Amino acid sequence: MADEPRIIRKLTGNFLEDFRPGQVFRHKGGKTLTEGLFATFTEFAMTSNPLAKNARYARTTGFEGLVSPPGLTMLVAFSQTVEDVSENARANLEYIDMRFGAPLYVGDTVEVETKVLNVRPSSSRPNLGIVHVQSTARKNIGASDEAVIMTWQRKVQVYKRDPDAQLHPGEVEPDAIDCPLWLPPYDEKADYGSLAHLSSRDSYFEDFEPDTLIEHSRGRTMTSEHIHLTAVLDNTSQVHCNQYMIDLNPKQYVGGELIIFGGIPFVLCLGLSCPNVGDNAVGDLIYRTGRHTAPLFAGDTVFAATEILDKHDLVEREDLGVIETRLHGHKFVRAKEGDDPDPEAPEGWRKVPIFELDRDVVVKRRSHYG
Amino acid sequence: MADEPRIIRKLTGNFLEDFRPGQVFRHKGGKTLTEGLFATFTEFAMTSNPLAKNARYARTTGFEGLVSPPGLTMLVAFSQTVEDVSENARANLEYIDMRFGAPLYVGDTVEVETKVLNVRPSSSRPNLGIVHVQSTARKNIGASDEAVIMTWQRKVQVYKRDPDAQLHPGEVEPDAIDCPLWLPPYDEKADYGSLAHLSSRDSYFEDFEPDTLIEHSRGRTMTSEHIHLTAVLDNTSQVHCNQYMIDLNPKQYVGGELIIFGGIPFVLCLGLSCPNVGDNAVGDLIYRTGRHTAPLFAGDTVFAATEILDKHDLVEREDLGVIETRLHGHKFVRAKEGDDPDPEAPEGWRKVPIFELDRDVVVKRRSHYG
Amino acid sequence: MADEPRIIRKLTGNFLEDFRPGQVFRHKGGKTLTEGLFATFTEFAMTSNPLAKNARYARTTGFEGLVSPPGLTMLVAFSQTVEDVSENARANLEYIDMRFGAPLYVGDTVEVETKVLNVRPSSSRPNLGIVHVQSTARKNIGASDEAVIMTWQRKVQVYKRDPDAQLHPGEVEPDAIDCPLWLPPYDEKADYGSLAHLSSRDSYFEDFEPDTLIEHSRGRTMTSEHIHLTAVLDNTSQVHCNQYMIDLNPKQYVGGELIIFGGIPFVLCLGLSCPNVGDNAVGDLIYRTGRHTAPLFAGDTVFAATEILDKHDLVEREDLGVIETRLHGHKFVRAKEGDDPDPEAPEGWRKVPIFELDRDVVVKRRSHYG
Repeated sequence: MADEPRIIRKLTGNFLEDFRPGQVFRHKGGKTLTEGLFATFTEFAMTSNPLAKNARYARTTGFEGLVSPPGLTMLVAFSQTVEDVSENARANLEYIDMRFGAPLYVGDTVEVETKVLNVRPSSSRPNLGIVHVQSTARKNIGASDEAVIMTWQRKVQVYKRDPDAQLHPGEVEPDAIDCPLWLPPYDEKADYGSLAHLSSRDSYFEDFEPDTLIEHSRGRTMTSEHIHLTAVLDNTSQVHCNQYMIDLNPKQYVGGELIIFGGIPFVLCLGLSCPNVGDNAVGDLIYRTGRHTAPLFAGDTVFAATEILDKHDLVEREDLGVIETRLHGHKFVRAKEGDDPDPEAPEGWRKVPIFELDRDVVVKRRSHYG
Repeated sequence: MADEPRIIRKLTGNFLEDFRPGQVFRHKGGKTLTEGLFATFTEFAMTSNPLAKNARYARTTGFEGLVSPPGLTMLVAFSQTVEDVSENARANLEYIDMRFGAPLYVGDTVEVETKVLNVRPSSSRPNLGIVHVQSTARKNIGASDEAVIMTWQRKVQVYKRDPDAQLHPGEVEPDAIDCPLWLPPYDEKADYGSLAHLSSRDSYFEDFEPDTLIEHSRGRTMTSEHIHLTAVLDNTSQVHCNQYMIDLNPKQYVGGELIIFGGIPFVLCLGLSCPNVGDNAVGDLIYRTGRHTAPLFAGDTVFAATEILDKHDLVEREDLGVIETRLHGHKFVRAKEGDDPDPEAPEGWRKVPIFELDRDVVVKRRSHYG
Repeated sequence: MADEPRIIRKLTGNFLEDFRPGQVFRHKGGKTLTEGLFATFTEFAMTSNPLAKNARYARTTGFEGLVSPPGLTMLVAFSQTVEDVSENARANLEYIDMRFGAPLYVGDTVEVETKVLNVRPSSSRPNLGIVHVQSTARKNIGASDEAVIMTWQRKVQVYKRDPDAQLHPGEVEPDAIDCPLWLPPYDEKADYGSLAHLSSRDSYFEDFEPDTLIEHSRGRTMTSEHIHLTAVLDNTSQVHCNQYMIDLNPKQYVGGELIIFGGIPFVLCLGLSCPNVGDNAVGDLIYRTGRHTAPLFAGDTVFAATEILDKHDLVEREDLGVIETRLHGHKFVRAKEGDDPDPEAPEGWRKVPIFELDRDVVVKRRSHYG
């Protein structure tokens, strides 16, 4: 070309002033769950429920085949919303009323839409504010098995493009989304007992006692693998994968380095808790609220614990019950000189809570499956 | 064994003096595209065209299912040629007349053959020279859907085994390979509009203007993941995965460290440009020429930009058009003391072009699909 | 909760004093082989046998489709035993009488059980001892193609929970497990020759000469990818993935850093040897004995060599033969000041053997397949 070409700088994602209450995003892409994605994400997190690992077990239990664990369903659905909602976010603040519906299988195609409920400025930082949205994920749109697989709200802290821009006012009520958790029917003739050795022996409904805290024994160190994992999910947020952007202006970013996508510790905590809490679960009913309390970086080792808050029967299903839990994630960092000793950590270390999730799980009763 | 065994040192790959113009390699292995490979490579590069992500979208568009994006097809086909052609290469110099034919689907099996066109010594370095080859990839040989999926030439700089060896003389013309790009037929009754929200709104044929340069907004930092990615592709070149070999003699190797397989930045640049250039593409027609202009190492962040050179109609397909583009990849490195300021980079940094590809893409018209 | 909850510290895995000779573990989980797992593990190790890469080749050879290479079968089966047998192990000491049976395909579900044969204290270290077990892996239990795919013994060094605990006495004989290697029938009408270019030309039965040592040319550097790979296999042993545990007490752990799961170098050595020894194999018959002779860490580059010990005919199969081999793995480390020069390593380096496996392989004869 003789002359210099005209330059077009493409920006992706929305900034705070772009969001309008009532606005609906029908997110781009959509995602068919392949066996590749299934294997990568089910297992990096040490998920141990055989429904997600053993097709014979899953079919005998009443599912069509290997079942996507709730953490993978959440990662796939959530990530579809990132470009429109949080590509330019600083942090995800809260998960609210996250509910699961139809099971997700390999071969299913997920598409997601999001409604903006509310946009608020930050009181202290003029270049930031909070967007409150409601998202719903459906599978196999147009096919006979079309169904809602998940719906949730979240609040996310988003940068402004222009610190002086006005925000769109208004507040919209969340829609009432019908998203009943699908449960496999109980078959009196099935030989469930012949499968019982494949899941842990001490995680039936009868085993959980309110007012206990179960400390899960395993830890898992995250590496720079998080960059690849995040890309494979279609999560395009640059704070997870663009080291150059961080290097240019480290102080603007949490921790001054690439931050691990919150979906990763979310799913890792679910996985680490699985042998003790999730091995005999048939589905996660609701995450009432959840939040990240500290960032996670490559090199950190993640641990988890589960508080059993309460338990109750499930209407019309005497083979199952619901346990109400609070899932906690934490890591340990080396104490700095002058830090007070931390009674919850070995000498020279501090325990840092990173994640919290109020989680109701539907679990099998030993009386029927054990 | 009582005596010392006889030692056989196996070498793999050919050296410069082994290549004979006219010689044909029917490459070993072959590769069936699994859902594992598909998921890993479609998505690590942030490809956003729904044809490669959403089976509902792909089928409604007229394909059989999820479609391998051109970058993945290229990685699978190209890597099959590495052992015979470039296992002992120093660098890949040029891609020429790279054309795509039939679509590649999960479950298809790819096999490749290569003809040597020409072998030339280096004028300045007695232990190196250039091999010029033509390769063709077919799928499902012997089955009813056997087809050419890709054909290309490349020039590659290869080491000699013996610096004094004579090279095979001669020059062979490339074969005329029939490799027409398969395009899904346009169906007047299909409801394409119901899918339009799944791809970007500003990447239809009507949107591209010659003499513009589109700067893609995202960057992607590469990690040591490249070693695994390269192995999974069957690319056996030791400069990508054998740190000990580099450590023994760092000066012999570009950059003195493991160099990332050129197919990785090739595909990453295609992926980074996808939201703006490839979201509404139905296929890549031809890469007339392409080259790597600087090496990529673990830790580098890759960016891309696309020049729109020209656009034209496609015979007998008024629903589609062709855009002629030049894809540029670049990275930023920290400036050294004494470097002149770089007007294209922030203070303290230099912009380094890493890749260039002349690329004709067949894209949808908004008039028919928007 | 008003009061502090009762804390339950879950431990996973057994300690030395928990094992009872004669005890049988029916391991939890089970694992369906997905295309994701298949792609990741077949190819990270540079396996080159087309049976594991090219479905057309595999079917023409007489298999149902892509065949899991012996290394992947071993990783999947072995990992199922980790939680019960070696989650609290210090090191795996020996593989014994490891035999392969039915082929493993994508979609098959593997379940494993293990019998404890013997438990012995360490003579020098009161907190350690050795467990000797026998494990058997079956596929598709309850279906028409249920079959034993693998059986093996191993000795593993396990920590005691309490250094003063008494061990369970006794010794149990290993069971006689029927596990014949399945071989594809030879079809006189098949055109095997049309596939011969897809595997290496110099690895037929006729090519192997007893008392030779084949040095395989490739090396492969391992990265922190090992943490992900190990998790994806359901191997939950903390010495592979819990950096914090190591940091708290580095001296307790081999090398004072995360050690790479032994299955990784096992499979990597098989893969590196594949072009020269495994390309024309139809199956691995038996690994009589095998052991890790040094640990592997992230950053190490793995090399392999194969001794041909002997070769013999296979009863009733004149198209095939058996080669008896010893597979050696090694790495190089930088020599320390004062080290004697190592005649097997370049100056400044020492060669460190890491793995050894006595391995009988069934390979094609050129007379029938070449």
